Amino acid sequence: MHFHDPPQLPRGFRCGAARAGLKADAPDLALFVSDEPCVADAVFTTNHVVGAPVVLGREVTADGRLQAVVVNSGVANVGLGPEGLDAARRMADATAAALGVPGDLVLVASTGVIGIPLPVHLIESALPALASSLGTDPVAGARGMMTTDTHPKAMSVAVGPATLTVVGKGSGMIAPNMATMLVFAFTDARVERAALQRIFRDAVDETFNMLSVDTDTSTSDMCAVLANGLAGPVEEEAFAAALRGSFRRMTEVLARDGEGATSLLRVRVRGAATRDEARVVARSVVDSPLIKTMVYGGDPNVGRILMAVGKCFDCTVDPERIDASINGVAVLRAGRRADFDETRVRGALRSGTVDLDVVLGVGEGEAWAWGCDLTEGYVQENAAYYSS
Amino acid sequence: MHFHDPPQLPRGFRCGAARAGLKADAPDLALFVSDEPCVADAVFTTNHVVGAPVVLGREVTADGRLQAVVVNSGVANVGLGPEGLDAARRMADATAAALGVPGDLVLVASTGVIGIPLPVHLIESALPALASSLGTDPVAGARGMMTTDTHPKAMSVAVGPATLTVVGKGSGMIAPNMATMLVFAFTDARVERAALQRIFRDAVDETFNMLSVDTDTSTSDMCAVLANGLAGPVEEEAFAAALRGSFRRMTEVLARDGEGATSLLRVRVRGAATRDEARVVARSVVDSPLIKTMVYGGDPNVGRILMAVGKCFDCTVDPERIDASINGVAVLRAGRRADFDETRVRGALRSGTVDLDVVLGVGEGEAWAWGCDLTEGYVQENAAYYSS
Repeated sequence: MHFHDPPQLPRGFRCGAARAGLKADAPDLALFVSDEPCVADAVFTTNHVVGAPVVLGREVTADGRLQAVVVNSGVANVGLGPEGLDAARRMADATAAALGVPGDLVLVASTGVIGIPLPVHLIESALPALASSLGTDPVAGARGMMTTDTHPKAMSVAVGPATLTVVGKGSGMIAPNMATMLVFAFTDARVERAALQRIFRDAVDETFNMLSVDTDTSTSDMCAVLANGLAGPVEEEAFAAALRGSFRRMTEVLARDGEGATSLLRVRVRGAATRDEARVVARSVVDSPLIKTMVYGGDPNVGRILMAVGKCFDCTVDPERIDASINGVAVLRAGRRADFDETRVRGALRSGTVDLDVVLGVGEGEAWAWGCDLTEGYVQENAAYYSS
Repeated sequence: MHFHDPPQLPRGFRCGAARAGLKADAPDLALFVSDEPCVADAVFTTNHVVGAPVVLGREVTADGRLQAVVVNSGVANVGLGPEGLDAARRMADATAAALGVPGDLVLVASTGVIGIPLPVHLIESALPALASSLGTDPVAGARGMMTTDTHPKAMSVAVGPATLTVVGKGSGMIAPNMATMLVFAFTDARVERAALQRIFRDAVDETFNMLSVDTDTSTSDMCAVLANGLAGPVEEEAFAAALRGSFRRMTEVLARDGEGATSLLRVRVRGAATRDEARVVARSVVDSPLIKTMVYGGDPNVGRILMAVGKCFDCTVDPERIDASINGVAVLRAGRRADFDETRVRGALRSGTVDLDVVLGVGEGEAWAWGCDLTEGYVQENAAYYSS
């Protein structure tokens, strides 16, 4: 798949970012808008505790239409009861007024510290100037969504006559069973609502729902797609491939930029009893602190792979059939350590991209999961996130 | 409960440790023996992948009798097929020969790196001298079991006319759903086999099975109890209380000495729909990397407690009923951040022992879980465990 360099927005979309004052020294407000109302779909975190924007977002996306997305970073607007919901509604209303779009077509997202009030007046003050200065560079919008991300995340790709653009932010409190993080996809392709929903949810399920930075499922995550139709119809299969491919790439970008990470870890499990069991095993491997530190240390303590597979208590596992390889080098054969070149595996573990392939040999189930190594940097960032 | 200081062994038990040469510069072989055959019970890891000592241990403990325990550290004897099992049997046979006890009354345990062969000839060579130099200090035996533990772990307590002694080792790859780590309890109390099994398994379930250092369930863990009866019968309730109390204390000792840990984290969940749901929520909180780094950083980012409770997808959670406190200071009330003294909570988080109380307000279920903070030290130890 050929991604544009630099990325661009589809026709009819504009975006930008501003400093509203929620963070001391960085953009903290992002705005994305389409000239025309869009067919849309969205998925949200499955955490029982959700931010006010998630409550509001479920409401406004129920009818499958959106025109604008507004995102603040710094404060997550979670755990604040009716005041939080009121603040989220005020954020939607201020966005609608500044852009001249209906309030019920505005999706609100907030990310940052949980449990402290959102200073919504700062956002209300900043929105009119931001709305009048929007441009066509998706990176500018992505920049306003960043929290502990080390760089803004945006990409785009052609789909026939149309463009598909994806912007996202990570990079901690990320785990499966949710829409995962904040990711927004914009396209000028014309896609029917039912098809868009099906294609979008399948793509999320295979990509973001298999991403885990630290097993902690956020209260604020959402992923949405907006299609304004200005480029006309596209082939459905091509659109599905572009969305899945973009989401997969964004998943890898988010994993690689996981808090403190120095390596992208891609785990592929084959030969599981079922696809669901393959997913469980892939997550167990990608989430294991001892696998993550093995990658970080470049230390081929490959027996840990047996441990991480074996602790999937409810899956069919035959220890004597487990094969595994790291970047193509066989490290386990039939449940035993293979006779491998340690120097080569050390090099692979330190190469920045680690492909850990596991074959269970008990069926046809297959799945991928994405994650990253565990480093002192993760500990340091999260030991002081609230105060810094 | 009054623990002996220093700890002592019950009558009729002896133990010791030696350097067999599996580790470069520390004792790596421990031996515990009773003068008389004991009534015994044992539980083992639930990982699908298990070490050869676990396979053998299930065999020898099936009839509820044991007389000796031999433990090596350095090499776990996991993932080696029939050769591994042969090595474990040789270790049992050599122990039986050195001590003059039947081979089928010897429990073998190994802990250390997974997937590399056990140099059993080194153990065979070291056993005769070790067997002839045993003493009555349980700390000496505990020292031979250490891996990344920073100190040997042994304790004892009186039960009427009898003594109960518990030795253990941690301190990484520790998570619930198993017997957890290596822990052995010795007593001269006379207890019937059925009662011993019931009391022992209940105590393990409430203590070691609720301990998690890093969510990674080992392939080698076991916990066993041996009662030689030399002190005569004791009151069953007193014995049960002593075993539960000792296991709870050992759980805290192991958690506090978790790899890289600077704090013991005790999580108590009340008001859950059921006891099982309380256990799930308590584990979710104690396992959360973001809770663990909050403790390490002494940073009262208490919204993370809402996240960790909320990600228990299959439990009954009403976000607006969640209360929580840290060392007695209310930090969440009805799902919202309480108005608390931050300096006081920072002090509590840095005090070395953090009691995190969560009340769900939806039922009567209650549970405890134990863990520790997540630090740069954990990452450093595990990034180089294999090589160092």
